[in-house]
Amino acid sequence: MEQKMKIGVLGGGALGMLYGGAFSETYPTTIYTRTEEQARKITQNGLLLSIGTKRKKLFPAALVSGKLASSQSIDILFVALKSYQLPAVMPLLRQLPAHIVLCFLSNGIGHLAYLNDLPARTVIVATSEHGAVREHLNQLDWRGMGKTNYSYYRQIREDTVMLDAFFEAQTEFIFQKHADYLPMLFRKLIANSCINPLTAIWQVNNGQLIEVEGYRRILKVLVTEVEGVLGLTDQWEQVVAICRGTAENFSSMATDIANQRPTEADSILKPILEMATEKGIGTPLLELIYEKIIHLERKS
Amino acid sequence: MEQKMKIGVLGGGALGMLYGGAFSETYPTTIYTRTEEQARKITQNGLLLSIGTKRKKLFPAALVSGKLASSQSIDILFVALKSYQLPAVMPLLRQLPAHIVLCFLSNGIGHLAYLNDLPARTVIVATSEHGAVREHLNQLDWRGMGKTNYSYYRQIREDTVMLDAFFEAQTEFIFQKHADYLPMLFRKLIANSCINPLTAIWQVNNGQLIEVEGYRRILKVLVTEVEGVLGLTDQWEQVVAICRGTAENFSSMATDIANQRPTEADSILKPILEMATEKGIGTPLLELIYEKIIHLERKS
Repeated sequence: MEQKMKIGVLGGGALGMLYGGAFSETYPTTIYTRTEEQARKITQNGLLLSIGTKRKKLFPAALVSGKLASSQSIDILFVALKSYQLPAVMPLLRQLPAHIVLCFLSNGIGHLAYLNDLPARTVIVATSEHGAVREHLNQLDWRGMGKTNYSYYRQIREDTVMLDAFFEAQTEFIFQKHADYLPMLFRKLIANSCINPLTAIWQVNNGQLIEVEGYRRILKVLVTEVEGVLGLTDQWEQVVAICRGTAENFSSMATDIANQRPTEADSILKPILEMATEKGIGTPLLELIYEKIIHLERKS
Repeated sequence: MEQKMKIGVLGGGALGMLYGGAFSETYPTTIYTRTEEQARKITQNGLLLSIGTKRKKLFPAALVSGKLASSQSIDILFVALKSYQLPAVMPLLRQLPAHIVLCFLSNGIGHLAYLNDLPARTVIVATSEHGAVREHLNQLDWRGMGKTNYSYYRQIREDTVMLDAFFEAQTEFIFQKHADYLPMLFRKLIANSCINPLTAIWQVNNGQLIEVEGYRRILKVLVTEVEGVLGLTDQWEQVVAICRGTAENFSSMATDIANQRPTEADSILKPILEMATEKGIGTPLLELIYEKIIHLERKS
């Protein structure tokens, strides 16, 4: 790789700002936002990142996402959107030249359905273990440092050599390669499908889910159900470790419900329920919980 | 006791017909029904009781419940109504002379609130372990034979001597005396509050609740929650035994939901939730389940 990778990040939410900010320290980086206002704020005032008591000001470029179509110079575009936001940007992504690598950071597996329909010759799916909360249009609180898992959904050899070198070069903002994308997504899915809806229903942080005995008992039953559907075993310790590692954090779904926003229930929980139906596996608790989340969404 | 006890049974549902039918073999017994039609059917055609493949025709008297006020000759009135039906008959019960002993067969603890307001000098609360399904206005299927637990809510010594002798004389339709009514009601309550709503939500019989692993896991968490609130321990084996002993039965709540009737959720589940709030004990699963039942009731 002779030149520096030119990076685009689609999405000005917490994850988009985190990845855009982190890359902007080393690479020419542009964040593509939904609103003109946010792009202007980031351009004029920079991006303010807090990590514990530390604060950092970063200066990624920022443009409204409509300008993505004319940005031929990007090498890789990180799509940091929630699954339910993807349909709206699909026309944009379909216009991009095939040489731009797309890397999807969405939760769940709902976004997989869209990927075959894109011109990009190399498509990566990734799961982020970072915890971040957007506090203002240009302010971000990085609450939990994790790694980013990635795996190729489709690829050409030329790209993978270049990309693996790029990801390996990230020694602070770590990326870990996975051979198969489905087990990787499933491991994230089990955590998201169990931790997120329960914290959303009870409006508690991730830590309380394992600290309060009554919550912990229900979490355990839910993990067992979802394990059964995804064909995984022994995920309980992993889920507990995530709750412990992100004890102070409110999950995205808990935050969405608290802020009366739509949740990712349909991309995180629904695919599991559909898989369960196909496989003839009972998921009585997950059904109860999915219905409750939908009910809470409607109330808001 | 010189004379035979004269027995009244208020309620022409499954339990009312069972107790009325059983007593009518030995005692002068009158069943007081809500509708004229049912009283007429029982009077004209008798009461048809099936026990497995056996059938028995019994001839209790039957009158519409309005006629209870003029029935001075009853010694004991079994009130076989659901808690939510009690407010409607309270004016009737308040008119009864104080010497008529009242024995309440309602589920839950919701009915306790009404008992202080009655003239009856002796009031018994009882829990029935029998399983019965009303199949027609004068037909009953006795699916599970159990015992009746009873305890004095208030009493005078003269009555207790006579009543204990009466109950002890029942060697086929067994009654078992309990010193304290609250633990007795609580033991029934834990079964009702755990088995009934889950079978209602999933529309399964009691047996499936422990046979299907996914249901059993949730049942166990629910039992643990309710135990905590009621200050009981080690109820799991009892609940499993009840499910096993009544495996083929559909709980009253499951049947109520299936038939789009109101359920006893407010007298079975709500008092537990209120007790939990008072004691500061978390019952996240019971709350979820209560809301679901209320939701199912509203849909019907």
